Amino acid sequence: MVIRPYAYGIWERMQQGVDRRIKEAGAENAYFPLLIPESYLSREAEHVEGFSPELAVVTHAGGEQLAEPVVIRPTSETIIGEYMAKWIQSYRDLPLLLNQWANVVRWELRPRVFLRTTEFLWQEGHCAHATKQDASDYAEQILHDVYADFMRTELAMSVVEGRKTRRERFAGAINTMTCEAMMGDGKSLQMGTSHELGQNFARAFDMTYLDANGDQQLAWTTSWGVSTRMMGGLFMCHGDDRGLVVPPRIASIEVAVMVVRDDDAGSVTEAARALTASLSDAGVRVRLDDAVSTAFGRRATNWELKGVPIRVEMGPRDLEGGVVTFVRRDLDGKRECPIDGLAVMIRAQLDEMQLAMFARSEQRRLDATVRTGSIAEAVEVASTGFAEIPYALLGEAGEDELARSAMTVRCLIRPDGSLPLSDDEPDTVAVVARSY
Amino acid sequence: MVIRPYAYGIWERMQQGVDRRIKEAGAENAYFPLLIPESYLSREAEHVEGFSPELAVVTHAGGEQLAEPVVIRPTSETIIGEYMAKWIQSYRDLPLLLNQWANVVRWELRPRVFLRTTEFLWQEGHCAHATKQDASDYAEQILHDVYADFMRTELAMSVVEGRKTRRERFAGAINTMTCEAMMGDGKSLQMGTSHELGQNFARAFDMTYLDANGDQQLAWTTSWGVSTRMMGGLFMCHGDDRGLVVPPRIASIEVAVMVVRDDDAGSVTEAARALTASLSDAGVRVRLDDAVSTAFGRRATNWELKGVPIRVEMGPRDLEGGVVTFVRRDLDGKRECPIDGLAVMIRAQLDEMQLAMFARSEQRRLDATVRTGSIAEAVEVASTGFAEIPYALLGEAGEDELARSAMTVRCLIRPDGSLPLSDDEPDTVAVVARSY
Repeated sequence: MVIRPYAYGIWERMQQGVDRRIKEAGAENAYFPLLIPESYLSREAEHVEGFSPELAVVTHAGGEQLAEPVVIRPTSETIIGEYMAKWIQSYRDLPLLLNQWANVVRWELRPRVFLRTTEFLWQEGHCAHATKQDASDYAEQILHDVYADFMRTELAMSVVEGRKTRRERFAGAINTMTCEAMMGDGKSLQMGTSHELGQNFARAFDMTYLDANGDQQLAWTTSWGVSTRMMGGLFMCHGDDRGLVVPPRIASIEVAVMVVRDDDAGSVTEAARALTASLSDAGVRVRLDDAVSTAFGRRATNWELKGVPIRVEMGPRDLEGGVVTFVRRDLDGKRECPIDGLAVMIRAQLDEMQLAMFARSEQRRLDATVRTGSIAEAVEVASTGFAEIPYALLGEAGEDELARSAMTVRCLIRPDGSLPLSDDEPDTVAVVARSY
Repeated sequence: MVIRPYAYGIWERMQQGVDRRIKEAGAENAYFPLLIPESYLSREAEHVEGFSPELAVVTHAGGEQLAEPVVIRPTSETIIGEYMAKWIQSYRDLPLLLNQWANVVRWELRPRVFLRTTEFLWQEGHCAHATKQDASDYAEQILHDVYADFMRTELAMSVVEGRKTRRERFAGAINTMTCEAMMGDGKSLQMGTSHELGQNFARAFDMTYLDANGDQQLAWTTSWGVSTRMMGGLFMCHGDDRGLVVPPRIASIEVAVMVVRDDDAGSVTEAARALTASLSDAGVRVRLDDAVSTAFGRRATNWELKGVPIRVEMGPRDLEGGVVTFVRRDLDGKRECPIDGLAVMIRAQLDEMQLAMFARSEQRRLDATVRTGSIAEAVEVASTGFAEIPYALLGEAGEDELARSAMTVRCLIRPDGSLPLSDDEPDTVAVVARSY
């Protein structure tokens, strides 16, 4: 996967939005090695079993064969666990809340750009807590206050917060929580996960602490991550037949100011440049497109394809009339607007577009979500959207049956849509869908 | 290498300072794969020869032996060259100015923390230009406007901008320019480099473009980078016997507000908390240390060791008198200051400390730099600092002789200290030193 500047600008804004919320949740950034001794992974049995098929292994380095091969991190629970165990001595060291922005490698036989790539970029939080309750609360806080809030507020995406079934859990976790989003085609995409790891990794890495009574205790750990996969989600949630539609808050370019064509004096370009500067001064992320040697239609299509939220077009006639032509990417049609006061109007339109995109995403998910009362009905519904079905009607056998239709339980929710806090809640509802 | 949160906070600020300047220089961030087919590296003969001994090689992945081994990028000229060649068609696509923040691996047999680690974090710029002159100008712009400016302004480090001799060049470059800084012990550290790659990589990757006349031309490329090695430089330049001294502009914590001890009513902690909030509101990066159950001396030593620029100490007696005790990390002694107006005073002290640290770094380098007239004299001087010697007195044979004393020509400068613009300038002066 190569991420070109336009997409990377979106990723940078995603990083900023997530990083700010992670810091507000009290975690600090750190960095751990890319290469992990193979023996570390083997210490947690389910973990190594889950990741072994996807590992990239370095056997030679510095011109020699290595005594112990090292693997490129597929995720960093093990290497970070090794160090956290050294740093945690007493209950005063807890919670230890770390996050890392990094690349990871999971060898993919069927890669799909942004969604399933051999290498991807992500953040991975790794935390140690004193009690099961602390760990559970923090994992939930990250899911809700960091991930779901970021996705709704900045990505303008409607997401379901739920709990994975046993079979869909992260390798080594006792609970995996997820944000699932509906793509334009009704399929689901797992946008981010937050795991309670119980004491599995603490035991494997001897992560113990002295409590207030001087007794030795095993820590409880959590891990959580979102990745460049969110870009795939963003594009497939909001995109249409003409290309991407990028929500203003995450767009690296909010407004493209286009010179349609110039007069001999160059006065349109001059006016467009002045307008660009005034928008920039007003805090709008704006780009001037004065490449008049390229056909206007081709340039306009390019901005449309890239999903830039607002296009402002200016030609000789507009300039005479003191107006510009204005196109919002998420609406049909063009409008004429006076140049005077344009910055204020644009700021308002960007805010409105952000909210409108979220509202449409929310509405589409609600419209394409249907409560069902049998597996057959759920399979029918989930061919075009999300089917809800009481988990009691499914069970693990029902999950097997769904798998035969290439469907899965994306997550469990309560009847009121909220997050179940244990595996044993009786009335949970399964959200069934096809997925990427 | 593990980077813990305190150091990573410094790295984040370094990234911000460098990234802002890179964007001002017109380059855009992008991301390219970590894993490079071995065959890519072999296309540029000097490049592969230079990096082969340090490569980490992935031979197995996804449970199988790979048909062609891939290497972990030691640097990305080859993989980025492969893509740039696809993207460049006409002179209108030039210059193509890309930058990547990434990790790289160069297998080190004698690692040294922050200075020479098997994996390190860096930014690597990779650009293609239409002419040799454009490439040369841009490489120099990056060295001066991005790197040297950042190091002087934010790291408070005096650096020499110079040109490497032929033997010290980057593998595959026709010119390497460098920023060299003097550490506390008089040794030199290469803090960042900017390379003209001529047409070597353009030829290897078939990076051609149609010029304005419709003729096919080979592009000229540049590459440039700074890394987590700058952290080693920062610590070894400014540190003293009591630990780090971090310049305010790069410090993740500028001020530590310490509760010395509290009274029964908890009024000191309360006042310290209010002071911390008021400093934070004034835009100061401040941390409250109210861990009174740990001995005060131990906590004070910890902040000193970490090099936090200003320590504000508050005890019951200070509070009564409406004062605090104030310690600037780069000066001896404590001062008493009224609490009223403290934020303004602290802002001024931080600014002053930043400039004072640069001035001391500059003065130390000038004091420990001596013009010499023979190789023997240069070797004598360079045992404790920088020796300057006309390169005409050295030549490649002289460089061999220096190597026997574990010294190198760090860079060539003009007699007036400025950067030589070609290999052929007659009066260049060699800066000779030991180095890390």
